[in-house]
Amino acid sequence: MSDRILATYLIETPYPLAHAAEVMAGEQSCGTFTRLASETDALREEHAARVEHIERLGTHYTPSLPIPALPAGSVHPVYRRARVTLSWPLANLGASLPTLFATLAGNLFELKEFSALKLLDLTLPEPFIEAYPGPQFGITGTRELTGIPERPLIGTIIKPSVGLSPEATAEVVSQLLAGGIDFIKDDELQANGPHNPFKARVDAVMPLIREHAERTGRKVMYAFNITGETDEMREHHDYVVAAGGSCVMVALNAVGLSGVSQLRRHCQVALHGHRAGWGMLSRSPHLGMSFVAYQKLWRLAGVDHIHVNGLRNKFSEEDASVIASARACLTPMFNPPAPGCEVMPVFSSGQTADQAADTYAAITSTDLIFCAGGGIMAHPDGIGAGVRSLRQAWEAAVAGIDVDTYAREHNELTRALGAFRR
Amino acid sequence: MSDRILATYLIETPYPLAHAAEVMAGEQSCGTFTRLASETDALREEHAARVEHIERLGTHYTPSLPIPALPAGSVHPVYRRARVTLSWPLANLGASLPTLFATLAGNLFELKEFSALKLLDLTLPEPFIEAYPGPQFGITGTRELTGIPERPLIGTIIKPSVGLSPEATAEVVSQLLAGGIDFIKDDELQANGPHNPFKARVDAVMPLIREHAERTGRKVMYAFNITGETDEMREHHDYVVAAGGSCVMVALNAVGLSGVSQLRRHCQVALHGHRAGWGMLSRSPHLGMSFVAYQKLWRLAGVDHIHVNGLRNKFSEEDASVIASARACLTPMFNPPAPGCEVMPVFSSGQTADQAADTYAAITSTDLIFCAGGGIMAHPDGIGAGVRSLRQAWEAAVAGIDVDTYAREHNELTRALGAFRR
Repeated sequence: MSDRILATYLIETPYPLAHAAEVMAGEQSCGTFTRLASETDALREEHAARVEHIERLGTHYTPSLPIPALPAGSVHPVYRRARVTLSWPLANLGASLPTLFATLAGNLFELKEFSALKLLDLTLPEPFIEAYPGPQFGITGTRELTGIPERPLIGTIIKPSVGLSPEATAEVVSQLLAGGIDFIKDDELQANGPHNPFKARVDAVMPLIREHAERTGRKVMYAFNITGETDEMREHHDYVVAAGGSCVMVALNAVGLSGVSQLRRHCQVALHGHRAGWGMLSRSPHLGMSFVAYQKLWRLAGVDHIHVNGLRNKFSEEDASVIASARACLTPMFNPPAPGCEVMPVFSSGQTADQAADTYAAITSTDLIFCAGGGIMAHPDGIGAGVRSLRQAWEAAVAGIDVDTYAREHNELTRALGAFRR
Repeated sequence: MSDRILATYLIETPYPLAHAAEVMAGEQSCGTFTRLASETDALREEHAARVEHIERLGTHYTPSLPIPALPAGSVHPVYRRARVTLSWPLANLGASLPTLFATLAGNLFELKEFSALKLLDLTLPEPFIEAYPGPQFGITGTRELTGIPERPLIGTIIKPSVGLSPEATAEVVSQLLAGGIDFIKDDELQANGPHNPFKARVDAVMPLIREHAERTGRKVMYAFNITGETDEMREHHDYVVAAGGSCVMVALNAVGLSGVSQLRRHCQVALHGHRAGWGMLSRSPHLGMSFVAYQKLWRLAGVDHIHVNGLRNKFSEEDASVIASARACLTPMFNPPAPGCEVMPVFSSGQTADQAADTYAAITSTDLIFCAGGGIMAHPDGIGAGVRSLRQAWEAAVAGIDVDTYAREHNELTRALGAFRR
């Protein structure tokens, strides 16, 4: 394995592609706007980022992102797109995720040479595996913690997202447990607010989960949202562990790489990664980063689950993108693959029994958490029926039985499809 | 002061504006895609985000960001823009910066109802001042640490950004000290890489700074880039303090809010905030967040300086945006204003003596750090001349003397303008 870091970008530029790629490489390694005497050939040879590959794509006549006027003489610029791969020597930064972020996703997005620039993928050398523990539980560990060996975990989000007291939250949890749920999560908006303080919520919820586990032999996983300051997250993590919980959740973009990575090293339970704010990095096809690159950073930082949206979701993301994200989570990192670095994709956002078949057909895996909020809680026959409808939908999908056929003998599924199919 | 949090967004939507605004408010507080029985009127009254104001802007015929096809019947959609202000009760989240981020800058960017969504500004209630220390040194403290009461701090970035050994870095520092520099920073790409380990760099640089301080009575501020894991940042901070340093730097987006906020509570020196990666949030006029909103989060987290780019920079940002950013840093936060929450804007990127006059004219303040890399190091007469040219340019600006007039009696300035004016 090479000791170089590779990153691939989509670019669009009115400048010659080779020049534009060199500008990126210079900005993100040893260049400045004018070459200094101290930037010797030997130094460049050893430390400059290298342009490894340029794959030409199409040409466009308008810039995708605003770009300053070109110098006089460039009257009719064309904007060329390309896929560009750069590489950096590990010696520049060492195996540091935050400095990797500053190197691969730093100033270059602002360069005037580009009317589009998106980080598509990255490949890291082995020292990153040694420096970062990666997922602690991942797919296998999450299955062990929940006692569900094969099928998808059927999950839900406490709704309304905010506004319930700890006691009202516990009341919902009680119904979900009775309904046979596998996984429950706090909403990302619900962390430690005055109207539902974190510890009071744990105190209200965990006795129910423990009692249910004692009775059924299966501990339902509740992802308590510990998003907050680092000391607070550690304290809340410990509180969950002491109460017998098996999962904590963090809003990744809100906390940041250093905070999540620190938490992972302390963490004793599954670490559930929420990507709130992801739209800022992803909504533009011409800016930001792909989920393929993004999830690699967080897997290395140590999350065990990460959100990927869902098919026919309430957001703007297309189904193909959702599936590509889920597949990325299930794909080994590093070459040769580092064992156990896969994480569970979390399907969420407008999910109901109607999406199971297509989801399974697209990813051919059951290693996932399938979260439905309204799809469970708004089932016409109640929460239990909502949960059963999702299990039935997945049973049909895995068995290769058409969902409508299966529904004929499964009333909860019939009612779910009737209520939610769009 | 109200106990509500306010945030203003630019939106663009093919849906009626009032509906679209309610969708945002619902997604970011107690809504889900179908209204649940438990989402009572009382709960909504107390916890739902409220649409406070909608200011209509123009109408467009193409969406600014890709948006899913509208339902059948909406044949010729128009995309209406507006400035929308929402508010949240503090009770939902408490005075937590990470949960504030998830609330104001979370899932809503992904909503299918929007073909543009950008966070423009935010207003926080007083409990945030109590919960967060804000800048420790800010403008006054930075002036005290550097012994420069009135004029801008003339600064530079070690270049080449990467590739110099600790000893080679020290050699550059030595020349900068001799040249009369006020402020030096590591590049954001240079943190703790194998070829220039952090402690070796401090060991090489700090004796020179201490010796210079003893000789001149003025301690040059060196912003050591401690960007890294939280424990590593703390250790490196302590190392800088023990060596007599007066500043540490972090790449804010790489570290994240929780990590920076934790560092601030431990920090004994000025905290220099680099915004590498900012382009991902800012390059699209239709997505992300404004610097006005962004810098409020980081000021509250506790940075003392934050980068704002510079006039006629090497990036794509327009001058008006740079100036708005710098002014934002110098504007009090909270209402009534919380004392000492202003931070020093750091001008950087292709800066030379040529930009001082326009910068001063635009912000009418000298409370800033003016960083020039090539503008100092590539001065035809060397580093000392480069530093002097910048001081001279600022002297002229503050005195209201035309820079070319002033240059007639200041040779370094003449030579700088000759070399760098574009």
